[in-house]
Amino acid sequence: MMATGVKKSEHDALVSTAHEMAEAARAAILPHFRRAELAAENKSQDAFDPVTVADRAAEQAMRDVLARRRPDDGILGEEHGTVAGSSGLTWVLDPIDGTRGFISGTPTWGVLIAVGDENGPEFGLIDQPYIGERFVGGFGLAQVDGPLGRAPLAVRGTRDLAAATILTTFPEVGTPQEGAAFHRVAERCKLTRYGMDCYGYALLAAGQVDLVIEAGLQAYDIQAPIAVIQAAGGIVTNWQGDPAHSGGTALAAATPELHAAALEILNAGA
Amino acid sequence: MMATGVKKSEHDALVSTAHEMAEAARAAILPHFRRAELAAENKSQDAFDPVTVADRAAEQAMRDVLARRRPDDGILGEEHGTVAGSSGLTWVLDPIDGTRGFISGTPTWGVLIAVGDENGPEFGLIDQPYIGERFVGGFGLAQVDGPLGRAPLAVRGTRDLAAATILTTFPEVGTPQEGAAFHRVAERCKLTRYGMDCYGYALLAAGQVDLVIEAGLQAYDIQAPIAVIQAAGGIVTNWQGDPAHSGGTALAAATPELHAAALEILNAGA
Repeated sequence: MMATGVKKSEHDALVSTAHEMAEAARAAILPHFRRAELAAENKSQDAFDPVTVADRAAEQAMRDVLARRRPDDGILGEEHGTVAGSSGLTWVLDPIDGTRGFISGTPTWGVLIAVGDENGPEFGLIDQPYIGERFVGGFGLAQVDGPLGRAPLAVRGTRDLAAATILTTFPEVGTPQEGAAFHRVAERCKLTRYGMDCYGYALLAAGQVDLVIEAGLQAYDIQAPIAVIQAAGGIVTNWQGDPAHSGGTALAAATPELHAAALEILNAGA
Repeated sequence: MMATGVKKSEHDALVSTAHEMAEAARAAILPHFRRAELAAENKSQDAFDPVTVADRAAEQAMRDVLARRRPDDGILGEEHGTVAGSSGLTWVLDPIDGTRGFISGTPTWGVLIAVGDENGPEFGLIDQPYIGERFVGGFGLAQVDGPLGRAPLAVRGTRDLAAATILTTFPEVGTPQEGAAFHRVAERCKLTRYGMDCYGYALLAAGQVDLVIEAGLQAYDIQAPIAVIQAAGGIVTNWQGDPAHSGGTALAAATPELHAAALEILNAGA
């Protein structure tokens, strides 16, 4: 499952570049967070998908770092499209994952940065600028830095659905059929929480929740979470059990047992 | 609607006491947040209502401050019950509002502190210890201190449901009938967000969302939010339009127009 295309000698430079990008994104976003003049636009006419000035400024700030430090790498970003590279590496960027949460003032949106190749992400970073909290995973790292200092990331050992906490952004995303499939799993779990966006994946990597199930994802929504969760010992696939890094559906689990149990239920009604 | 029983000469001492209580609660809670050894108990057998060591320790820490600084005031707390006072003032305490969120590692639970008399709260405080964010309202104050510094609290001017963002903890709390009433309002709104617990009321006071609708509340869940929202220019009643400080249902709105529109829909199907 894990991609292995990045030379070890490049790891430190890539991690350092990702942190610099995250700092640049923070600086671009925070002046706009919870500001009254914030104006959301609609990218499409049939879906509520606000894009803010902050979203675009943050992606540009991250691209500026890449232009300087990694000019040969490719880029796939939510706001400014795709740039082909020559190095074989691609950066996958979502400047503000959870724009609905952002425009509501909640602290659970995040900046997503991943780097890898066609086999998927090898390193990922989930940053929450308002809290000042950053989760990273890959290249031998699995840690969070935040208000309480630095801590290792490790999924917890929950094996039974009946003991599991499950997270999703349903009912906000996905089709009604996908929502129904989610609820079949959720009703077997101990506790369900809603609306955390990328923060839910970070909580899974931190050993706080056991399952995250979503649909309607783009590659840039899921690549950083995949890398962080895998580094913390968890599992991410799509609802068919295949690699999830191209987007679509996602099933993230703390243990193989939970993953298998949820996968069976998700497909039982199909 | 606003209670007026507290002498102005006491305001500074009460505000200072509330901040000292909030600091004590932070110190009691944070060592337990996101710790693997955290053990949740069930208070009742038919409802998922976890109580943690942190919850009880934080309430005791707040009561210790009151015993020293305000021995004649009454106390109503979630964990340790009611203490009658002789001053005519009562402190209403919820050491961790949002225990489900707390045990899931989310940063949207909070410490709630209110002080007032039988007519309701005159001052309230909503604290989020992990973020380091504190919203206060009453006695002439309406402000938040957090990662971005200090800012005034003021509700925004949304008048139409179609432009409103609505928050709730449904589907987690309340009866099916109450949930259905909520959804009748939500489907008229622009954006719905879930699962924020007390943080939703703080966001309303901060001008980030427009409506919060809940049910199944205790007095200690709602008194601090009432004081903070009223200080920020908003309105809180129950679903009958009466004072909400005794618990039950709550309808919090940024403007009288939104409040009236939501109240009518909540009662249309009754």
